[in-house]
Amino acid sequence: MKKFNYLNKLAFAFFTIASLSLTFTSCNDDDDTIDSSKKSATGILEEYNTPKYVFLFIGDGMANVQINAAEAALNSSGFLKSVGIGTLNMQQFNVTGMQTTHAKDRYITDSAAAATALATGEKTTCGTISQNGEHSEEIKTMAEMAKAKGMKVGIVSSVSIDHATPACFYSHAETRNYYNYIASQMATSNFDYFGGGYAKGNFTKYRDASRVPADFTPVDIDQAMINAGYTIATNKTELNAIANGTKCWAYSDQYDGSAALPYEVDRTSDDLSLADFTEKGIELLDNKNGFFMMVEGGKIDWACHANDAVASTFDVVAFDDAVGKAIDFYNEHPDSTLIIVTGDHETGGLTLGYAGTAYETAFTFLNYQKISYDEYYNNVVKSWDPATITFNEALASAKEYFGLGDETKTESSEQGLDFSLELSDYETERLQTAFDLTIGIMDGSVNFKEECAGYDSDIFGGSSYDPFTVTVTHILNEKAGIDWTTYSHTAVPVPVLALGQGEYKFTGYYDNTDVAKKIIEIAALNAE
Amino acid sequence: MKKFNYLNKLAFAFFTIASLSLTFTSCNDDDDTIDSSKKSATGILEEYNTPKYVFLFIGDGMANVQINAAEAALNSSGFLKSVGIGTLNMQQFNVTGMQTTHAKDRYITDSAAAATALATGEKTTCGTISQNGEHSEEIKTMAEMAKAKGMKVGIVSSVSIDHATPACFYSHAETRNYYNYIASQMATSNFDYFGGGYAKGNFTKYRDASRVPADFTPVDIDQAMINAGYTIATNKTELNAIANGTKCWAYSDQYDGSAALPYEVDRTSDDLSLADFTEKGIELLDNKNGFFMMVEGGKIDWACHANDAVASTFDVVAFDDAVGKAIDFYNEHPDSTLIIVTGDHETGGLTLGYAGTAYETAFTFLNYQKISYDEYYNNVVKSWDPATITFNEALASAKEYFGLGDETKTESSEQGLDFSLELSDYETERLQTAFDLTIGIMDGSVNFKEECAGYDSDIFGGSSYDPFTVTVTHILNEKAGIDWTTYSHTAVPVPVLALGQGEYKFTGYYDNTDVAKKIIEIAALNAE
Repeated sequence: MKKFNYLNKLAFAFFTIASLSLTFTSCNDDDDTIDSSKKSATGILEEYNTPKYVFLFIGDGMANVQINAAEAALNSSGFLKSVGIGTLNMQQFNVTGMQTTHAKDRYITDSAAAATALATGEKTTCGTISQNGEHSEEIKTMAEMAKAKGMKVGIVSSVSIDHATPACFYSHAETRNYYNYIASQMATSNFDYFGGGYAKGNFTKYRDASRVPADFTPVDIDQAMINAGYTIATNKTELNAIANGTKCWAYSDQYDGSAALPYEVDRTSDDLSLADFTEKGIELLDNKNGFFMMVEGGKIDWACHANDAVASTFDVVAFDDAVGKAIDFYNEHPDSTLIIVTGDHETGGLTLGYAGTAYETAFTFLNYQKISYDEYYNNVVKSWDPATITFNEALASAKEYFGLGDETKTESSEQGLDFSLELSDYETERLQTAFDLTIGIMDGSVNFKEECAGYDSDIFGGSSYDPFTVTVTHILNEKAGIDWTTYSHTAVPVPVLALGQGEYKFTGYYDNTDVAKKIIEIAALNAE
Repeated sequence: MKKFNYLNKLAFAFFTIASLSLTFTSCNDDDDTIDSSKKSATGILEEYNTPKYVFLFIGDGMANVQINAAEAALNSSGFLKSVGIGTLNMQQFNVTGMQTTHAKDRYITDSAAAATALATGEKTTCGTISQNGEHSEEIKTMAEMAKAKGMKVGIVSSVSIDHATPACFYSHAETRNYYNYIASQMATSNFDYFGGGYAKGNFTKYRDASRVPADFTPVDIDQAMINAGYTIATNKTELNAIANGTKCWAYSDQYDGSAALPYEVDRTSDDLSLADFTEKGIELLDNKNGFFMMVEGGKIDWACHANDAVASTFDVVAFDDAVGKAIDFYNEHPDSTLIIVTGDHETGGLTLGYAGTAYETAFTFLNYQKISYDEYYNNVVKSWDPATITFNEALASAKEYFGLGDETKTESSEQGLDFSLELSDYETERLQTAFDLTIGIMDGSVNFKEECAGYDSDIFGGSSYDPFTVTVTHILNEKAGIDWTTYSHTAVPVPVLALGQGEYKFTGYYDNTDVAKKIIEIAALNAE
């Protein structure tokens, strides 16, 4: 379990913010740039080679606006963001398309039904892992097809490796909640590489009957993987030492309470990144028969559920850095590689525009947020003594970690309008209401579910999040000109970005099941 | 000026709602279907013919979610909307791309800067009509280039023909507010067809110095057009009578107080539709030297400013019906036609997902809205006597025109959850607050601008809209699972949909100026 090192974290958080422009630059360095001289030979043509190397990147909860917010935030030079538009790796791709995401039984999907569609080309019901909606049949995944065809296969995620999205590529289950059952199927998959978060199904607390099918006896996942011939690596040194040809399960020993990698905004430079896991995966999977690799940016979704634009943006950039590793590979093998980047659904109803800021934006205000909502809640709010903490002390912590309430933090727009992080009466009132609720929950005087039932759950997220924390990030987002409509997923269409052999087939407007069908057809994955 | 016929309006409003499924079917009738046997010969290939016939459709304020909301609302069969996905005409196009919309001086653009980009391929400042940002030079538009090349040119809009978007194709002005000056340039353009709304610049109230440049004497636009050889048609009979070869200015005599066509949800079958103006335009412009035609769905934007999802959706469908007319033409001339459909920016921060409804949606609730927010305010709210109207009477009118508060109007989701239009205490409280403000504004006891200053303008739209009306549409939208973040534009990227010769060049992620550059290059519009 990850040990929280408070001082190091903060030191890094400052560093991370300070180095935003550096991160930005690294997105565009020579290594990650698409070599158009090689690309032009295989441009948007109806003719293509069957790609041997297939990458599918899934940004969980990521639609156009999450990408756009990252791009906007990366340019911190002021109000006008015309410099820096379209500078993410994924935005360099030749081809864009758009996919609808609905599940078999709900217009707004969940990650299980969406990932089943992306992995198999079939619609299923929410919560189902690569089975049909009635749970009477398993559906073969493109990763299993690739393996059967003799390709190597790798599965990478920034959340736990048994979470819905990665699970849908290597396992089959009636419900995404069968974590141990799902994780146990890594060991029987014969896939070549698993990387990223740890297995939630290996936590003692999940070894209960409700978390596995009735006829299944929970297993120790690490032991099962070792028995199946996998070498386990849990940090940079161990990962670097894994030799080619070795079947490997790599996870970061810095995993959080949900077995996921840290939020990118909270990650220290010693921690393994999504790009690290992707790069090593490419090294291990590269072979003459080709490979299929799925990489999920899973915490984009989690940050958007919490309506934390900064945490989301950092995780989009971490995801995009992982895409950059695939582009490096593409530049070496342009005639035999296909890279698809997409999302499974949008989360949060994110928009770059807020009623209170009207036509103005001030994304630079986001730079004052030093840690994710999650670190703030777990390491600041939770440390408060509800009997003694005052509202002013809470406000002081919001100023320290988010800049909120600091009237010296200002921006002027090109129209000469002035904005600052000073709190208005309305904002202070909202924070006071939220603070009272937070303290009431802590001392047991408030039953939050009852207090915030029904439609007014739009204010505090239906009891899923700490009222004070979520109000702090909301107000910071609003002052930057960013707003959200929900703490759940939405039904807006999701972009598909394609580069490489067969790329042109991904333009147009189609369904998420079509994404899988196109990949399977183009790469001739289904030998049957 | 349009005369409001209250009873007819309502009768039609009922009819319109009742015929939603009919409208839906008509989107997919044989006439509008893309003939793929013809299309396949000119599929997504790098080779193409220089198109002689070029259509540019601009949905003002329309991004992915506006399209998606229309598609979802069109299927009123229940919660699951898997039937009916991707059924709009524009969603049948082979190629999709994505464009960024920022202005030269602001990240969130306005329609003038955006339309200048789309018309000329150059960035300019907000408010500017096809001039550079310094207003020292005019920028040649693609419509002017087409005319200079010998093609015929038509400009159509559902809002006033001198509004920013159409203006940017035929005129040049320092500010979009110079309505009379802008409209006067129709007469000197030598373009062949103008259709849609009337000229705002011809209203007496706009004939003042602040609405024209200092050295310009306002003109009577109708007279100027007649003097320039245009025949004017103002209803279906007159429009049908216009013979080919005639230069024509066609506007609907049912124009509203802003010189725009009625909202589609309020339009009667006698009124000219955007599709009517488009169809006649095609007939008049068709000639051996080819034509360029720009068609704007301008009231999508206005509906989204007001956060009225029903009015927006009806106007998206009206816009899509106009696209259908171009598809009919394409099917006759597949080897020489290019159709581009895009937006200028998103408006409202619209999302299909709301915190209060979480993962559920109930779009069928939208069917209970009988008239636009605009008709409701102007013909219901404004008729109230603030001294005698009661909150209960106001609620009764919300029930009559929007179904709000009617507990018999219910929906059950596939997960067995039940929803109804019954008002919660929280919603009733919001309506009471809004009602008090509305009455206070009417009787002069409330200064709305002061009452709703600053960030809390997120609640009532910063004094632009009637508090009670906007709260009614908000709550209906929320109950359907739809929400908004702003009454202004947003910076989210906008889709580009392409069909025909050169279509493949429109996939990818690029800037709005690139849309124009691509069209000008593909159609070889710039003879210089």
